Amino acid sequence: MPLRSVTLLGATGSVGRSVRDVVAENPERLSIAVVVGGRDADALARAAIEVGASFAALADAAGGEALKQALSGTGIASGAGRSAVLEAVDRPADIVVSAISGAAGLEATFAALQPGRTIALANKESLVCAGEAVMAQAAEVGARLLPLDSEHNALFQVLGAEPLASVRSMTLTASGGPFRTWSMERIAAATPDQALKHPNYAMGAKITIDSASLMNKGLELIEARFLFDLKPDQLDVLVHPQQIVHGLVTFRDGSVSAGMAVPDMRVAAAHCLGIDGRLDAPPQRFLDLALAAPLSFERPDLVRFPALGLAIAALREGGAMPAVLNAANEVAVAAFLERRLGFPAIAALVEAVCAASPAGSEVPCDVASALAIDQDSRRRAASLLSQARFTVT
Amino acid sequence: MPLRSVTLLGATGSVGRSVRDVVAENPERLSIAVVVGGRDADALARAAIEVGASFAALADAAGGEALKQALSGTGIASGAGRSAVLEAVDRPADIVVSAISGAAGLEATFAALQPGRTIALANKESLVCAGEAVMAQAAEVGARLLPLDSEHNALFQVLGAEPLASVRSMTLTASGGPFRTWSMERIAAATPDQALKHPNYAMGAKITIDSASLMNKGLELIEARFLFDLKPDQLDVLVHPQQIVHGLVTFRDGSVSAGMAVPDMRVAAAHCLGIDGRLDAPPQRFLDLALAAPLSFERPDLVRFPALGLAIAALREGGAMPAVLNAANEVAVAAFLERRLGFPAIAALVEAVCAASPAGSEVPCDVASALAIDQDSRRRAASLLSQARFTVT
Repeated sequence: MPLRSVTLLGATGSVGRSVRDVVAENPERLSIAVVVGGRDADALARAAIEVGASFAALADAAGGEALKQALSGTGIASGAGRSAVLEAVDRPADIVVSAISGAAGLEATFAALQPGRTIALANKESLVCAGEAVMAQAAEVGARLLPLDSEHNALFQVLGAEPLASVRSMTLTASGGPFRTWSMERIAAATPDQALKHPNYAMGAKITIDSASLMNKGLELIEARFLFDLKPDQLDVLVHPQQIVHGLVTFRDGSVSAGMAVPDMRVAAAHCLGIDGRLDAPPQRFLDLALAAPLSFERPDLVRFPALGLAIAALREGGAMPAVLNAANEVAVAAFLERRLGFPAIAALVEAVCAASPAGSEVPCDVASALAIDQDSRRRAASLLSQARFTVT
Repeated sequence: MPLRSVTLLGATGSVGRSVRDVVAENPERLSIAVVVGGRDADALARAAIEVGASFAALADAAGGEALKQALSGTGIASGAGRSAVLEAVDRPADIVVSAISGAAGLEATFAALQPGRTIALANKESLVCAGEAVMAQAAEVGARLLPLDSEHNALFQVLGAEPLASVRSMTLTASGGPFRTWSMERIAAATPDQALKHPNYAMGAKITIDSASLMNKGLELIEARFLFDLKPDQLDVLVHPQQIVHGLVTFRDGSVSAGMAVPDMRVAAAHCLGIDGRLDAPPQRFLDLALAAPLSFERPDLVRFPALGLAIAALREGGAMPAVLNAANEVAVAAFLERRLGFPAIAALVEAVCAASPAGSEVPCDVASALAIDQDSRRRAASLLSQARFTVT
């Protein structure tokens, strides 16, 4: 099999780390030529040197000089700012991993959708804020979109070549987060430190808080809706604390195909990177069900975890509402991490911003309109934040 | 979708009952034109009338007159004996369900392998005793072979279009049977009534005893080896008492796809019958994992269940050994049901017959040679049965 070149957008995050690990395990199959990071010039330089990249781009223009210095003498070219990121995306690549978080990732994902390319997508905003536009663009240019999240990747794998008409529903599993067994009263007093204790994965702070509130699963439902072209009521969540089953496809005839793996992002990364011929995992990455705890499943509690209910409402509403929800949530989570909001106020702020948004709003048709909705919603969330009811009690 | 005609070989057994149920649920999609039964003329006549068949054939020539009388006035033609069964198999059909048990089913399966046909295979002997020959014949004539057993059907579904080179291993699950938690001493004294209490399925006596000894799972491993063209060491068994996960495919990259469903043979039957467009199951046949008991998995205990170990040895040995094992087991199970053997003596008799068979024996290349091995092994098992060590203690 020929060596495939990988462009890694989001090289310094947890997804980027997983991708680098998988590429390092398969040097005869994969090579990372281009890396892109957000703000941490030193971390990006280390990643670029580690993988032997030829070009590194930092999204934050202010870090360009630091990056250049950190890479001096290595022969690795670098750049910084929006244009450098777009230059990185335009460099030739067989596979582009889109794992820059936030709005910057949305623009990069769009730019990466080029003919004949495979895009492994981990940037949530691309599908949450502009799902229709991204899917349409991928289809139009003939780019292949692969989900890199464990849940969507599991669903993608077990769906296989089955036509959509065979599918009755898809179920995403959720760990339930650190507050799964907590009472409402206890959750109301939860601190950022408590919310940051994810039972299975070490991830960034934002997504870990979203896992604690179940908002993360709600955003994933929205992603799945676009990825698989399903109706909102074909999507479902089950809490599954062991995090071994990641997604289930229920077919019309009662057959259910479940995607499983050890809770390790490298499994989904390896699937995407080995899409034209599976890669070999090291022995310790194989699931041994005889050693695993029994697999349990429960319905999510939308009373204790209202954020998931808000996401389901936005999924059903469609239009711009998922983008509004996502933006409000980002502002709310940041405020919670800064101890400016209590944990339940995250959902309350999101609800208030969504409620104040016009119903039947337009579907974001491109990056610019998705980003405009995002910016507008953030402003409205920030403005609500200053209200008395959204302060730490 | 056009109406598809079904020939049902084994119309009166538990698989036949499941197939009739699924066809009855989908009258606009499926119609059973031909039914074949073993010895029970009345039951076959009832099945023929129930499904509105045009032809019914009984394998037992002696029951021909009874069948004709039971069908008189219905307009359903009938026949009995080997030639009538072969006539039934030759009648036009889109899908042939091969669910006649035992050696008779092997011949019928071979005869059913005709160009353009879909064969839903539930007859174990076809693959256990003549796996190479059946798979080669199917490929040669261009018949499509679908596994109707829950376990193999689950594996078939989750394998999908993945190339064999992607597969690291396949795992079949076993309920563990009624003796799963019993001590060796207690198993040694097990009666037929105790062995016939299968925890999840109502099936024939032979297969229920095989479930109690785990020989059934061993025979299924041998079937899987041929169905999926795997090496013996790529096949594995896990005991899974809840019987919700039926089979798992582990891919080289660590991804695992699991085929799940409620423990109901109609799910696999519906998959086979709806292979060109999934059928709709009634609401109660959908799995609800939130209501299910936690899913547990354990390695099979080959000390308490030596029959599985014997089957694995036969799987590795290959050649005629699986056919020898199967024939000896049939004789042993019949003797156990007649209380002529204790439960542990089933495996002991099988082991003795296998041990006395020449190693490196030839692969059965056709029906005749498979049947010859079968008959010879039965004779040797019957002869050993008369020995003092194989009597009830």
